[in-house]
Amino acid sequence: MRRAIACFTLLASTAYAVDNAVVTLRGYTPEHAAAEVQWEQKFRGIPDPAKVRENMRRMSARPHHVGSPYDKDNAEWLVAQLKSYGLDAKIEQFEALFPTPKSRKLELLGPEKFEATLEEPAIKVDPTSDQKKEQLPTYNAYSRDGDVTAPLVYVNYGAPADYEELAAMGVSVKGAIVIARYGQTWRGIKPKVAAEHGAVGCIIYSDPRDDGYFRGDGYPDGPMRPAEGAQRGSVMDMPVYPGDPQTPGIGAVTNAKLIPLDQVQTITKIPVLPISYADATPFLKALRGELVPESWRGGLPFAYKVGPSIAMAHLAVSFNWDRKPLYNVVATIPGSTFPDQWVIRGNHHDAWVNGAGDPLSGASAQLEEARGLGELLKQGWHPQRTIIYCFWDGEEPALLGSTEWVEAHAGELSQHAVAYFNSDGNGRGYFRAEGSSELENFVNSVTKDIDDPETKMSVWKRQRLVALSRATTDGKAELRNRPDIRMEALGSGSDYTAFLHHLGIASVNMGYGGEDQGGGQYHSTYDDFYWYTHFQDTDFVYGRALAQTAGTMMMRMADADVIPFQFGDVADRLRTYVTGVKKLTDTMRAEIKERNTEIADGVYKALEDPKRKRIAPEVEALPPYLNFAPLDQAMDDLTTAASEYDKAFAANALKAPPALNLQLIQSERVFLDAGGLPNRPWFQNMMYAPGFYTGYGVKTLPAARETIEQKQWKDAETQIARTAAAVEREATLLKSATLTLTGK
Amino acid sequence: MRRAIACFTLLASTAYAVDNAVVTLRGYTPEHAAAEVQWEQKFRGIPDPAKVRENMRRMSARPHHVGSPYDKDNAEWLVAQLKSYGLDAKIEQFEALFPTPKSRKLELLGPEKFEATLEEPAIKVDPTSDQKKEQLPTYNAYSRDGDVTAPLVYVNYGAPADYEELAAMGVSVKGAIVIARYGQTWRGIKPKVAAEHGAVGCIIYSDPRDDGYFRGDGYPDGPMRPAEGAQRGSVMDMPVYPGDPQTPGIGAVTNAKLIPLDQVQTITKIPVLPISYADATPFLKALRGELVPESWRGGLPFAYKVGPSIAMAHLAVSFNWDRKPLYNVVATIPGSTFPDQWVIRGNHHDAWVNGAGDPLSGASAQLEEARGLGELLKQGWHPQRTIIYCFWDGEEPALLGSTEWVEAHAGELSQHAVAYFNSDGNGRGYFRAEGSSELENFVNSVTKDIDDPETKMSVWKRQRLVALSRATTDGKAELRNRPDIRMEALGSGSDYTAFLHHLGIASVNMGYGGEDQGGGQYHSTYDDFYWYTHFQDTDFVYGRALAQTAGTMMMRMADADVIPFQFGDVADRLRTYVTGVKKLTDTMRAEIKERNTEIADGVYKALEDPKRKRIAPEVEALPPYLNFAPLDQAMDDLTTAASEYDKAFAANALKAPPALNLQLIQSERVFLDAGGLPNRPWFQNMMYAPGFYTGYGVKTLPAARETIEQKQWKDAETQIARTAAAVEREATLLKSATLTLTGK
Repeated sequence: MRRAIACFTLLASTAYAVDNAVVTLRGYTPEHAAAEVQWEQKFRGIPDPAKVRENMRRMSARPHHVGSPYDKDNAEWLVAQLKSYGLDAKIEQFEALFPTPKSRKLELLGPEKFEATLEEPAIKVDPTSDQKKEQLPTYNAYSRDGDVTAPLVYVNYGAPADYEELAAMGVSVKGAIVIARYGQTWRGIKPKVAAEHGAVGCIIYSDPRDDGYFRGDGYPDGPMRPAEGAQRGSVMDMPVYPGDPQTPGIGAVTNAKLIPLDQVQTITKIPVLPISYADATPFLKALRGELVPESWRGGLPFAYKVGPSIAMAHLAVSFNWDRKPLYNVVATIPGSTFPDQWVIRGNHHDAWVNGAGDPLSGASAQLEEARGLGELLKQGWHPQRTIIYCFWDGEEPALLGSTEWVEAHAGELSQHAVAYFNSDGNGRGYFRAEGSSELENFVNSVTKDIDDPETKMSVWKRQRLVALSRATTDGKAELRNRPDIRMEALGSGSDYTAFLHHLGIASVNMGYGGEDQGGGQYHSTYDDFYWYTHFQDTDFVYGRALAQTAGTMMMRMADADVIPFQFGDVADRLRTYVTGVKKLTDTMRAEIKERNTEIADGVYKALEDPKRKRIAPEVEALPPYLNFAPLDQAMDDLTTAASEYDKAFAANALKAPPALNLQLIQSERVFLDAGGLPNRPWFQNMMYAPGFYTGYGVKTLPAARETIEQKQWKDAETQIARTAAAVEREATLLKSATLTLTGK
Repeated sequence: MRRAIACFTLLASTAYAVDNAVVTLRGYTPEHAAAEVQWEQKFRGIPDPAKVRENMRRMSARPHHVGSPYDKDNAEWLVAQLKSYGLDAKIEQFEALFPTPKSRKLELLGPEKFEATLEEPAIKVDPTSDQKKEQLPTYNAYSRDGDVTAPLVYVNYGAPADYEELAAMGVSVKGAIVIARYGQTWRGIKPKVAAEHGAVGCIIYSDPRDDGYFRGDGYPDGPMRPAEGAQRGSVMDMPVYPGDPQTPGIGAVTNAKLIPLDQVQTITKIPVLPISYADATPFLKALRGELVPESWRGGLPFAYKVGPSIAMAHLAVSFNWDRKPLYNVVATIPGSTFPDQWVIRGNHHDAWVNGAGDPLSGASAQLEEARGLGELLKQGWHPQRTIIYCFWDGEEPALLGSTEWVEAHAGELSQHAVAYFNSDGNGRGYFRAEGSSELENFVNSVTKDIDDPETKMSVWKRQRLVALSRATTDGKAELRNRPDIRMEALGSGSDYTAFLHHLGIASVNMGYGGEDQGGGQYHSTYDDFYWYTHFQDTDFVYGRALAQTAGTMMMRMADADVIPFQFGDVADRLRTYVTGVKKLTDTMRAEIKERNTEIADGVYKALEDPKRKRIAPEVEALPPYLNFAPLDQAMDDLTTAASEYDKAFAANALKAPPALNLQLIQSERVFLDAGGLPNRPWFQNMMYAPGFYTGYGVKTLPAARETIEQKQWKDAETQIARTAAAVEREATLLKSATLTLTGK
């Protein structure tokens, strides 16, 4: 079965024997493939779990957030390590706005006054949990300063749909402080949407249903967040733009021109503070009003009410609005044949506190991966393309380090970057990757060569079988019928964002996970070496697997004679996006039509309950039918062009002229539209973006999709046409690449 | 819309004007219809919420379980009331085995020893909660005596599927005491399935996720079960047979021949005890082992583990195995034209404790309904058929009163019973009914004439619109396209069981509900007048609505010239059952096939986790293709016969000979098969039964369906054929009834 798949997908490869096995590598001449396979095998023998563990121990020994002494210390140590491996490493420094707390206060006023502790206590068995002097307090970065006293309203996860439900319940947050639970949406969405609805403050707490005892024993008995644990994190409006708020679109080097603080768009409109569920309990118990809908109820042992509270809450936060240095660590291995074609790898090194899981489980593996390539260099390996290893600073506050680096090097990167491979926190279990579809076959081909440490099957096979066990009937059929495992599109949440969404560089984000009760200490003091080595990838074999996987990708991409992008996957995937957007409008139309009918039939009259207030919806105009013809045309053109390119590649790849690589580098770039997405020009990739109201979650064909979701019918056809134009540019590029291949 | 529907469904009725409105009544001559409508309108003006309230206050003033002084007192009072209304009322006494606790003990042994309180404390504001001397303690009736000490295992709801999951987790209950939460399955299933898997004891507790603060504030702040509240209830194996365990199939009159206690099949095989979540907490916290699957986790504030516990639990219960008197109250209004055709109404009067909600919210309304008919009698109304009002005793332990009465009068009832209309606890909100499909159109026709107290629209319209708001797309289409609202089939859980499942008497169970957070005090001390009048149908307008609804049904059925059964609905409904059973086998085959493929592909190998034990399933033989031809043939025959009957009725009903009524009475009877269901001959209705492993939940075409579900392939075709024969009997009866109608 697996062999049949290989034959089907690797038409352009040449097959011959290494160690009596038939080996094929897309984009490689037979000779180069044979050598490559041997070098890759050598490489995968190098990464050592003990060294990954030691990297983590060293880097997580003290808190190392942006601006902390140990953040710089780690950066300098990384440079020294990389140099010791034989790589050309240096610190590339930027600076960015990074607010830290000056004062934090949260009280419940009234007869039973309560003041939140806002403190994660030290835990005896955990040796780094008492480093109080260096720990950042629990807070949400880029909350504005504020001092508000108001009643409380519970808003569930604080997503737009939650406010629709509140409206139906007849509850307004105008003038109130909202209390939202972490989860579902990216945290920055919660204060953004709350402010849009007139709230004056926002508390975000970790509910034990989502992030506590409901999911397992609390730390240190188990891996989950304890009662006093709180989640730090950024609430900057990153769906508008990430990176330094004062230098959008340009690298924040010393003396860069800064937008004045009071003109920055991405700082929250209302004060925000994250708290633990121990601190949240008195506030939630103070809520009056109706019982919340079932899906809104958390795991605390009382009835959840929507509010408002009779008792007032007092929230007061102020911050030091300082600019802090960022220490990106960048190491280079120059390419021997195509030095101007760059293959880039990255994982951040900064953390909220000690950050063993996030980000050091990934960064420690990446460092070990770099050591492996250094070993190969010593043995005589030379990559054809230039390899760049990056350890980013300032990812946690706002993808600061990677964004400023990408913005500062935008010109070169646009010209030279072939692909970007990202990782972040890593765990025990199954391989997962999201990213650009032209890399789908490539990622599949690499993971077929990586051994799973637990089952000894390939990580590709394990990923496929686990996906099979969880899929719907349709999903199972697709998995069985498709040679490659699909990669989902990238939203945001890590350092690939500027590469993919701002510059149009083909990107992949990858890691292992799914077997541990992970995430329990996310962005807390307790995400540290004790926690990770007791509850996660405790013997670091998945740290080794990540180093083997990403390292093999770097080598195989850097050494290929022709960049092994495959475009049938792109056309196939984009078609599902187009189908989805068309279905979205049909579904919206059907839903509004049905609701209008139900209003007319008296359904809402029948649902009236004298003891329970409900506001019935009003009749709404039906969405117009939209002109999707340009998108359908573009999809057909792309499908044909992709199929012809893949066929031509199969027949001619081995004699492809070098110019082809330069065309292929542009294949994600052409998805960019210089005008950017509506209301957020920094995001220029027309195929995908983090959702304006989801933050992490991807929206595919975002200009078209979000315009439709927000019922901006007048703009919808314009955005459909812009999207179609981007698809047409890809078709045109592929036609041209096919001509290059066939020599016509 | 509504008028069009009426025209479509009431073809056999004659339309003419009363109060300038067009009135049609299926099965009535024009003159009788006009009179009937006027009598019904008079009737509906009589029931008085204040009197329903007073009935409840009087009957709930003291605990009134089987064998208690106040149980008899209530029965005597009911007779006196009914006589005062002008009805011929009497007590019909039976006796039945009814065990009550002699001793109850539940302890957690080990260093942190805990003894369960097993006590529902009195609550200050609730005046009847302190009647300790008369209250039955918390216990499960028909648990065997037992004294066991064993480790604990958590089994979720204790359904068969939960044991499959346990097996996959590698956890056995052999020799253990299981702790199950209330909910999902009928409680008697929990010890039954536990014993089948080798458990030695069973604790059942009320989890706050299902029955406590997750659903609202605890009593007395809100209506929900408080921490110390426990649910009494029967655990007799009623899916085998309900009623007195010592006299299956015969009425338990004095001197009836008794099966010796040690030969009774329906007493549990292991000791059982129900507890509150306050009592359950230390036992659940003592569990070790893996975290349970997400859907198994309740609302208590800690991680739920599957067990076993290291600490041992000690469960010891013993009972007084006494026979107790049952006081059924039966009141009759003789029929003027067809005295030998009986229309029967029932609601039980016994409770576990004070029983304001269960059963007095229904019984109080039924008494007021009887008063209404008494008033009409005084005004000169005389029903054409005999009307019988029953207030059953002993429903709570095991449907004792109704079952023994039905068994004692089996001969007469088989000959004379036209239909049985049941109610039980009642609440605020929407009308709901389940029952025999030949009554579907009849029930719809009555509820169109009942005003909803809150919205003033008809309760039929409100039911339909609320169903519409909750339906799937397919469900919405069906609701819009069908003139009548569908009635689901009856499982078990109240006094219709012996009528429908043992004797084949067309039955309906009805009530109002859905607007209150009901059920919170189910089978507890706190289900009392204070609770009901603070949190449920507090002004008793839905008590009045129930009296109006059921009373109108009784009148309209008793006064009809021709019994207004409609059979297109029967054929339509049975066809969905047949489709369902066929789909069941296809689904089982597809699932086993898929699982076998996944085993072969290595999916379970891929899912292996060295830190988490999972037992992979084994390859299983595929279900054979079964011969459904007899059932398909029977369905076609029935569809044709029903259609022809309904057509003939439309054309000829007004001149139907009296013999037709006698044939129609048999239309549910012919579904009986004297051999009964496999392993439970008492259940003779081949169309529906309470599930052998669900207890309350209905299984349609149960002989065929359960044989297939239990993979007894050898028996499946026999059961399909027996089921088909029952359907053919209906077709034959309808053909014959059509001949009667057309006079051929």
